[in-house]
Amino acid sequence: MTFLPADLIRRKRDGESLPADALAAFVRGVTDGSIPDYQASAMLMAIFFRGLDPGELAAWTDAMLRSGDVIDLSAVAAPKVDKHSTGGVGDKISLPLAPAVAACGVAVPMVSGRGLGHTGGTLDKLEAIPGFRTQLSVDEFARIVGSVGACLIGQTERIAPADRKLYALRDVTGTVESIPLIASSIMSKKLAEGIDALVLDCKVGSGAFMKTAERARALATTIQGIGRAAGKRVTALVTDMSQPIGRAVGNAIEVEESIDILRGGGPPDARALTVALGAEMLILGGGATTQEDGARRIAAALDDGRALERFRRIVEAQGGDPRVVDEPARLGRAPVEVVALAGRRGRIVAIDAEAIGQAVVVLGGGRRRKEDAVDPLVGILMDARVGDEVDADQPVARVRCRDADAGRAAADLVARALAVGAGPAVVPPLVHEVIR
Amino acid sequence: MTFLPADLIRRKRDGESLPADALAAFVRGVTDGSIPDYQASAMLMAIFFRGLDPGELAAWTDAMLRSGDVIDLSAVAAPKVDKHSTGGVGDKISLPLAPAVAACGVAVPMVSGRGLGHTGGTLDKLEAIPGFRTQLSVDEFARIVGSVGACLIGQTERIAPADRKLYALRDVTGTVESIPLIASSIMSKKLAEGIDALVLDCKVGSGAFMKTAERARALATTIQGIGRAAGKRVTALVTDMSQPIGRAVGNAIEVEESIDILRGGGPPDARALTVALGAEMLILGGGATTQEDGARRIAAALDDGRALERFRRIVEAQGGDPRVVDEPARLGRAPVEVVALAGRRGRIVAIDAEAIGQAVVVLGGGRRRKEDAVDPLVGILMDARVGDEVDADQPVARVRCRDADAGRAAADLVARALAVGAGPAVVPPLVHEVIR
Repeated sequence: MTFLPADLIRRKRDGESLPADALAAFVRGVTDGSIPDYQASAMLMAIFFRGLDPGELAAWTDAMLRSGDVIDLSAVAAPKVDKHSTGGVGDKISLPLAPAVAACGVAVPMVSGRGLGHTGGTLDKLEAIPGFRTQLSVDEFARIVGSVGACLIGQTERIAPADRKLYALRDVTGTVESIPLIASSIMSKKLAEGIDALVLDCKVGSGAFMKTAERARALATTIQGIGRAAGKRVTALVTDMSQPIGRAVGNAIEVEESIDILRGGGPPDARALTVALGAEMLILGGGATTQEDGARRIAAALDDGRALERFRRIVEAQGGDPRVVDEPARLGRAPVEVVALAGRRGRIVAIDAEAIGQAVVVLGGGRRRKEDAVDPLVGILMDARVGDEVDADQPVARVRCRDADAGRAAADLVARALAVGAGPAVVPPLVHEVIR
Repeated sequence: MTFLPADLIRRKRDGESLPADALAAFVRGVTDGSIPDYQASAMLMAIFFRGLDPGELAAWTDAMLRSGDVIDLSAVAAPKVDKHSTGGVGDKISLPLAPAVAACGVAVPMVSGRGLGHTGGTLDKLEAIPGFRTQLSVDEFARIVGSVGACLIGQTERIAPADRKLYALRDVTGTVESIPLIASSIMSKKLAEGIDALVLDCKVGSGAFMKTAERARALATTIQGIGRAAGKRVTALVTDMSQPIGRAVGNAIEVEESIDILRGGGPPDARALTVALGAEMLILGGGATTQEDGARRIAAALDDGRALERFRRIVEAQGGDPRVVDEPARLGRAPVEVVALAGRRGRIVAIDAEAIGQAVVVLGGGRRRKEDAVDPLVGILMDARVGDEVDADQPVARVRCRDADAGRAAADLVARALAVGAGPAVVPPLVHEVIR
């Protein structure tokens, strides 16, 4: 290449805006191994401190995207819109959302991730359904998106390999928490899906990676900028993650709750978030004209059984047992239940959602490290939300576990994650902001 | 180790002051390879942005020092004081300085470096003397310091291996220009020499790494802080590098000029710098009470032949041909001489010393990369200094080269390095500041 990697690192370090071809050459070099990891990590740290401006970010993301295959969904006639969440606790929304949107005529090609640390992952939840396959070929994926209207798979080896390499490096070099690096990582994969548009669910609060609305908003607008540069419309919602979404936190347990939502029920916040995100996806896909129109259509699909029916077809197409849709008990359940008590009388003024997610990790339902296995049957059912009045001996959660010791440890974490006080509780809005 | 490298990187990245044992563990891990290069380079970039406070710097340097051997010079009865220069153009001062100081009763155990880029290196200059060996064993080094009073060698494999590893990494990851990393690199090697005290010649100006007095002063005081923490006195001189030191720039050609100085002659600035640095070394070694006293003693040693005699003994002890001392022609000389002309009439208002150094690299007398060989016989003799009045066709330098083409290219660089104008020239002082 005509650019010396050490020069590029130095120029970025000194705050220079690097030319697009230099950034592309750098990403190519990292992917093919001609630029060693130690130069890549120095560049990542320089980017952590100096950032990437919109032009640099578009070039960097494009190079990551081009490091692998872009899925060709041109055979799918319907508009194709995906949703991406920045990750949270109890965030099962993709499960009811994808079939509901598909039922309204907009195709959803969704490449999802696995859980890590306190956050769960869509793939782990889906795999709690007996037989469900998330590692499909690109051809199968395209075929199912075309025939069923939605398909949910894991990242393949051939999607954005540069991102896999850079992400692994960021994980061990203290360069994860960088908005341009997070944004380019997300978008390099999403742009590889062959989508027309994207709805971004940018979480903020105690269970999110972005703890403040400013950071969440910055990530949202950064991702929108990348989408704009790539000619894709992105609508971003900044939504609340100051307590778990819905009541269920775990894998099979979240599938059960998702089926409740798909039956027109489920916890109000989880249904409302499904409707809000679905409405924006319909607008982007031309399936609705306004937010109200979109919300009405998604709610109708949830209430009249079309979304549930679509979910059944997705499960079947991806090798899962479709009987779980009518008989959720087929998912199985951990053998022991331990109850977490409030411990004192008062009002729940705050919940540390991250700690709830960590309690599921303690149970074995989440991952400490990427290579860990996940127990699909353990989890936590929250019986209390911010603003609730509780007595000292009132159950605030039920912990589903393999043995009572682990259950008590998790229940203890849950109880301590609840701040019970005398003062008023500020219940945050579900949707902070919609950035179209 | 009990510290996770990724955690330490993140904490440094976020501006935290790291505990001494954590930094020591990190340096040990880099040295033994248990911490991979990509984590080391991320840490170096984080340090570039966040710095190291005095306590961290002392721990980091101490760990680098302890990664190898500390030379034991306890058998040498005399006080042991070294000089370190941050590097410049035409900086041959170690050659007259070490024997002059030794002649005044203070031993000089000097571990030097090679030239790179526009700066020359003491080892390359010494090796222009036929037979001169700079790769001695630690035992030989100690013996010669004891018997002759001074010995000048290259870094051995066993001195601060952590520094060698970190320096190689900094070189390719854009993390060279960091004052704490420069300071710790210098001091990890100097503290390994078994010295009692150090005089630091911190260069500032167009030919120095530090282009401003502020940066030079910051480096000087940072190094003094490390010395203080290690219980070694360090006197720092901030000296001028806005034009080459003396007239000769090259290898054999600088040895010749050094012999002139050792005979009581030589260019006034080169002699004055030798005297100024030597006086401070004598003060630190107890061989002089005041700057005036020290300067008088060094000047006397240069004028009465004792310094020259000491130089002859060093050359002999290190395997060199001592006859060069009386017959410098034995050093040899490049076959072709090309003259550089001023090009216009006026006053020399500034000289780009770095460009003069680069002209020597063009001739083959310096290194573009560490692995390059150096031609000992090429070089440049400057016939003009800042403040001189020149005519357009007046020679300003003589270029000694292997062939006329290379010589003309170098002469052209030299001519362009001189700013000839009508205005007054500000001749900078030789010594900007002495920080004791």
